[in-house]
Amino acid sequence: MSTFGQHFRVTTYGESHCLSVGCIIDGVPPGMALTEDDIQPQMTRRRPGQSAITTPRDEKDRVEIQSGTEFGITLGTPIGIRVMNENQRKQDYGNKTMDMYPRPSHADWTYLEKYGVKASSGGGRSSARETIGRVAAGAIAEKYLSEAYGVEIVAFTSSIGNEFLFPPTPTHPTFATNPEFLKLIDTIDRKTVDSFLPVRTPNIEVSQRMEQLVREYKEREDSIGGTVTCVIRNCPSGLGEPCFDKLEATLAHAMLSIPATKGFEIGSGFGGCQVPGSVHNDPFIKAPPVPAGQRGGSRPKLTTKTNNSGGIQGGISNGAPIYFTVAFKPPATIGQAQTTATYDEEEGVLEAKGRHDPCVVPRAVPIVEAMAALVIMDALMAQKAREATRSLLPPLKGVVPVGQSPAQ
Amino acid sequence: MSTFGQHFRVTTYGESHCLSVGCIIDGVPPGMALTEDDIQPQMTRRRPGQSAITTPRDEKDRVEIQSGTEFGITLGTPIGIRVMNENQRKQDYGNKTMDMYPRPSHADWTYLEKYGVKASSGGGRSSARETIGRVAAGAIAEKYLSEAYGVEIVAFTSSIGNEFLFPPTPTHPTFATNPEFLKLIDTIDRKTVDSFLPVRTPNIEVSQRMEQLVREYKEREDSIGGTVTCVIRNCPSGLGEPCFDKLEATLAHAMLSIPATKGFEIGSGFGGCQVPGSVHNDPFIKAPPVPAGQRGGSRPKLTTKTNNSGGIQGGISNGAPIYFTVAFKPPATIGQAQTTATYDEEEGVLEAKGRHDPCVVPRAVPIVEAMAALVIMDALMAQKAREATRSLLPPLKGVVPVGQSPAQ
Amino acid sequence: MSTFGQHFRVTTYGESHCLSVGCIIDGVPPGMALTEDDIQPQMTRRRPGQSAITTPRDEKDRVEIQSGTEFGITLGTPIGIRVMNENQRKQDYGNKTMDMYPRPSHADWTYLEKYGVKASSGGGRSSARETIGRVAAGAIAEKYLSEAYGVEIVAFTSSIGNEFLFPPTPTHPTFATNPEFLKLIDTIDRKTVDSFLPVRTPNIEVSQRMEQLVREYKEREDSIGGTVTCVIRNCPSGLGEPCFDKLEATLAHAMLSIPATKGFEIGSGFGGCQVPGSVHNDPFIKAPPVPAGQRGGSRPKLTTKTNNSGGIQGGISNGAPIYFTVAFKPPATIGQAQTTATYDEEEGVLEAKGRHDPCVVPRAVPIVEAMAALVIMDALMAQKAREATRSLLPPLKGVVPVGQSPAQ
Amino acid sequence: MSTFGQHFRVTTYGESHCLSVGCIIDGVPPGMALTEDDIQPQMTRRRPGQSAITTPRDEKDRVEIQSGTEFGITLGTPIGIRVMNENQRKQDYGNKTMDMYPRPSHADWTYLEKYGVKASSGGGRSSARETIGRVAAGAIAEKYLSEAYGVEIVAFTSSIGNEFLFPPTPTHPTFATNPEFLKLIDTIDRKTVDSFLPVRTPNIEVSQRMEQLVREYKEREDSIGGTVTCVIRNCPSGLGEPCFDKLEATLAHAMLSIPATKGFEIGSGFGGCQVPGSVHNDPFIKAPPVPAGQRGGSRPKLTTKTNNSGGIQGGISNGAPIYFTVAFKPPATIGQAQTTATYDEEEGVLEAKGRHDPCVVPRAVPIVEAMAALVIMDALMAQKAREATRSLLPPLKGVVPVGQSPAQ
Repeated sequence: MSTFGQHFRVTTYGESHCLSVGCIIDGVPPGMALTEDDIQPQMTRRRPGQSAITTPRDEKDRVEIQSGTEFGITLGTPIGIRVMNENQRKQDYGNKTMDMYPRPSHADWTYLEKYGVKASSGGGRSSARETIGRVAAGAIAEKYLSEAYGVEIVAFTSSIGNEFLFPPTPTHPTFATNPEFLKLIDTIDRKTVDSFLPVRTPNIEVSQRMEQLVREYKEREDSIGGTVTCVIRNCPSGLGEPCFDKLEATLAHAMLSIPATKGFEIGSGFGGCQVPGSVHNDPFIKAPPVPAGQRGGSRPKLTTKTNNSGGIQGGISNGAPIYFTVAFKPPATIGQAQTTATYDEEEGVLEAKGRHDPCVVPRAVPIVEAMAALVIMDALMAQKAREATRSLLPPLKGVVPVGQSPAQ
Repeated sequence: MSTFGQHFRVTTYGESHCLSVGCIIDGVPPGMALTEDDIQPQMTRRRPGQSAITTPRDEKDRVEIQSGTEFGITLGTPIGIRVMNENQRKQDYGNKTMDMYPRPSHADWTYLEKYGVKASSGGGRSSARETIGRVAAGAIAEKYLSEAYGVEIVAFTSSIGNEFLFPPTPTHPTFATNPEFLKLIDTIDRKTVDSFLPVRTPNIEVSQRMEQLVREYKEREDSIGGTVTCVIRNCPSGLGEPCFDKLEATLAHAMLSIPATKGFEIGSGFGGCQVPGSVHNDPFIKAPPVPAGQRGGSRPKLTTKTNNSGGIQGGISNGAPIYFTVAFKPPATIGQAQTTATYDEEEGVLEAKGRHDPCVVPRAVPIVEAMAALVIMDALMAQKAREATRSLLPPLKGVVPVGQSPAQ
Repeated sequence: MSTFGQHFRVTTYGESHCLSVGCIIDGVPPGMALTEDDIQPQMTRRRPGQSAITTPRDEKDRVEIQSGTEFGITLGTPIGIRVMNENQRKQDYGNKTMDMYPRPSHADWTYLEKYGVKASSGGGRSSARETIGRVAAGAIAEKYLSEAYGVEIVAFTSSIGNEFLFPPTPTHPTFATNPEFLKLIDTIDRKTVDSFLPVRTPNIEVSQRMEQLVREYKEREDSIGGTVTCVIRNCPSGLGEPCFDKLEATLAHAMLSIPATKGFEIGSGFGGCQVPGSVHNDPFIKAPPVPAGQRGGSRPKLTTKTNNSGGIQGGISNGAPIYFTVAFKPPATIGQAQTTATYDEEEGVLEAKGRHDPCVVPRAVPIVEAMAALVIMDALMAQKAREATRSLLPPLKGVVPVGQSPAQ
Repeated sequence: MSTFGQHFRVTTYGESHCLSVGCIIDGVPPGMALTEDDIQPQMTRRRPGQSAITTPRDEKDRVEIQSGTEFGITLGTPIGIRVMNENQRKQDYGNKTMDMYPRPSHADWTYLEKYGVKASSGGGRSSARETIGRVAAGAIAEKYLSEAYGVEIVAFTSSIGNEFLFPPTPTHPTFATNPEFLKLIDTIDRKTVDSFLPVRTPNIEVSQRMEQLVREYKEREDSIGGTVTCVIRNCPSGLGEPCFDKLEATLAHAMLSIPATKGFEIGSGFGGCQVPGSVHNDPFIKAPPVPAGQRGGSRPKLTTKTNNSGGIQGGISNGAPIYFTVAFKPPATIGQAQTTATYDEEEGVLEAKGRHDPCVVPRAVPIVEAMAALVIMDALMAQKAREATRSLLPPLKGVVPVGQSPAQ
């Protein structure tokens, strides 16, 4: 469906060629300062037309809050968000070629199979414009998480094609075991990431190689994929709902719902399968004191020495940085001629007109951040309901902490 | 929460050390033949104690259907399932060591952070026994899918440690582009997979190397991870709900909810990021005729020549085989001594008693199959509601098929 | 939350004094003709300012479809609906009096208790403008139900104060047993109902007495309540989900979610408690043949001779007309001076400014119809998913129909 | 579906004639003392066979907790509950007569319309045994509500046939305006209610008249309906979710999901429609101080002088006692001969064998209490998540309380 989340609940609408796109966000805590200015920056970061290597389609993407705030304060009621579709260029799609051919590896064919109706844009809601609602909702979640806990969510490009920020090696089949990586995710911020535009990978040399790579694909009217890695710092412990809504499961759900994604890994991920348990296990150590002025109150007494778990154990956050990586495929719409079949089953050659992204990875960065914020916010509200109801019960004797169990 | 699915809805209960584990399955189509015999085989395949390389804990795991059938026929009402916990061996857990230390990379610590209560087994529902309800429910979904559409779901071990069934190469950074792989998933069945016990990888040489590898880790009281690849054949087209419940998103959610998982990739996955769009795109071709006797009626007129999409485009199944891979970490419970901290923040050395799996990958095979069946069944019912309501509308003129659009 | 329905899912936003109100409707069947013209009539029927006895606040309430249709055809994707708030008159609310006093029996106080933030309009989303999204969504559901099954949903005023369309008598403690009532609901249509504006009760004498009654309350700056009765004809059998989502339960939920409602009764209702089972039971009879040209195909073979059940038995529709009655309280906002307390706990006298409805019952008619349509549509989709999945199973022998049970 | 609640989530299974009935309760706060002894009393109160005027079917109805507790303490994980079906007497149902006829006003016919399969018991889950899971889950919710807030939930019989505890009068068309009624609900407890067994109406004269009435219907092999009124005291303010999940809406949903219900009214209800707004409005007064030792902390500063609202305004609890009334129809299964039709559309005479309740009202009392507890618990958790997240935000200046609005 078009709804994400149980407690912080986002419902989106809108295709590429309709009047507007937007969303309704239900469950926003009341009494939070919120205006369009809190939302616009991430909206702008996901906007096309930011550099020579992205699509020049130009949308203003100005957010309008319809409801749910008054005098710049949230009321606790649903927030309606609308962004106009201004620059539709239907002519690129409504032509004969696009009407005849389902684009290979695009959503044209499957949307027709599903709905039995062919939208003029082909893939209906598979349009990248559908992600606008996600980014708007994510910005609101993020503002809350930042104000309440000082949560920081930062994503960056970690590979394009075979150019990697941290290439796998026999010693480090996963970057999770690489101290350089752990150092990076401890400090990286969005400003730094954006200083490496257009590719958004925080390393000058790798960045240049990636930019060059994308340029080559663009010139060949071809496309290339890559990965985005995202870190969530200062996330409270205890988030994630056993068994089916483990935190990594809802993160995976969120990320694989972004268009063009092919994979997700939490912490050590696929590379971690090659690491022995004796190395992979994260031993516990006493946690450092909480920095003065840190929002959100107390922290767990223990933390882990290493972080192959990616901040999640047993499906529940442990207070350490959460990090994960998302794979994005090469964009399906390419200028090169492709031999394929028409809707009427006849072989033919398709040449896609229009200007298309040779690589979506850099633009995906704020979308990944938004979906991460939605997942954490939703899990937080579930856990807060539990903690708050528990706190009203009379204290138990002899159950917690360990060593006082009634069984002894 | 402990519920999975919107239409075919599974709710599970049970920890390692309680009276029983089980589930309620709501939404089972009425009028289907169903007895315990339909469920037991997959239950037995997931059972521990199957070989020298798995844990010898011996559970009969006999399924008892409590409700929802009569005379061996489903009534359409919820099916209650119960499996007794017979062999609990609380003594392995209730000892002083386990009470003092949260096991590294296990769920002991985070469960305490979340619930504020420490179960005697430590990680509460993170126990592998929680998967029993999934497998039972999956078997019911699978029976329906097989009867209605001839759907076949087969999973197998695709890597253990650095032993791969299809190792990545510069030509094939993903096995998706490897014709050998596509041939394998076209024909592989469970009987063949089980003929390669204990590791369940369908290749005699790789299987022997993997078995040897696991044995070495076992001897060192260490553990190792690996991957399971799963194929779903004969899945109808049109399944998956834009935008947030794309089929790969719900598959990822399902898979990452299985204990010990670290990653998920659909189709070409992470390796596919390195393949140019011009190669990665799956051109359309006319579909071959449906084999005589094939259940489930008509098929799409088109199919794809290659299958880097893994049977899903725009979040919607296209009728081609769906395949995906799931990463499993090395089990956290190992016999080796580990320096870590107690619940009371003091450093110490933990040596886990008991007998533990050095590698969970082979036992995960039926669990992956079960979760896949639950996802497909749920998506199918969503789509069937759409198709059935649509079919009652008066036919439209000039909208479908292509070439008759009112805009022309 | 602000979402209604599982399959046909409506999410609304908007307060009295924000930029716009609206909704997103997810699950609309694709391929249905739909424009604003299908929605506007019901919107206009619920609009204030229709007569001397309703509030003169004048809103154009023009519906704008934002998404989900193309060339006047539904795409199957979410439909965004927006209606501007044009005539806000904040001054009536933002004055000193309204800021000091929570209005008695209004939502001002409880909204503040719930959210801890006071909106300038007092009761936030308790505004009648919140119902706009319901009516828009209901109109879409209704169009589908009409096209697919010829479903007709008609509501009318059945009492105002102590003036009843069918007053309870010792013989007929419920109008369910009154043949005149059954005859009325068999034929009543909206045009007839609206010919009895302003009160919308289809009887000239009762209508005049009601109008007079409302006028008297208006003159006294007082208010009065009443009831709306609604009938749903041609509803297919089999709708309603045991156990918790029985059709009467979801109807009750829907109706009691309308502002100012105090009660709900299905079929014979409260009066039916006084009728002996031997009279109350609805004996089965052979159903009459389906009229030629009737949409939606086959009907049940049996129907009931009487209809005290109100078309629902065991929580499931039986194909007979469904009817129910909803109680609306006297509006809380009255012009008369009321002794009450300020937010600061001091006693004082409140005189509500502005112009207010002395009776909301006639305007509630299209809202009741809309909510009824949403309930039926949602239940229909649930049942269609069941029927469609069941129909793919191989036929069973000896289970259905009766008399061939394997037990014999 | 068979699930009730979003946060405190109950899923039930079981028919009349299967192995067992039961439920899974997800969302129970961890750290609460809980054993079977907390659940059994309400289970026993709903049990048949309690007096000469109820059905003599004898079930032990012993609750077994399967999971989710350890050493008598809740773990926060799902609680599995099972109650065996011991005394099934299939012979009463499996006979020729019951196989031939759908019982009038029972669920036999509609279950067959819905599922296409005929269970031997006829109405499948419409059995009263389905309510066992509700009562078990309700007892757990109730224990929490009592421990955390001192919530008290007490239901009683308020009418049988035309015998009323508070008959409607011209002065009091609703008992809401009757001071005697308000006094009663302020103090009534379960022990008092049960001292009026078998009818459970707390008035010796009315009770005797009701008992006599039921006896007469029993002797005639006929049946009669009635109403249950329920009060919830000490409920915190702020519960209920605008717009669709207003507290009265979810209460109505819960109550109308109980078998044999025909109506629901909150507070003044249907009678309240006849009361002028100037009388019906509940003026605010300063709240009395919270009694010493009262659980659950602070209370609202204001309360209402009268309580026609029934403790709910704008869909949100205001802290005053919540009360509502539920209508139960005369049981459909009667011994008298009924002329009706067979499944095969032939007219005939049905005489129902077995022993049946002439009136379900007294036994419905604990079921109404259970469903009320589930609704309040679920709404409480939703509100606690909101309050807890809000409390972490930096304080706002000039928004609350009234009179400091930034607009001034």
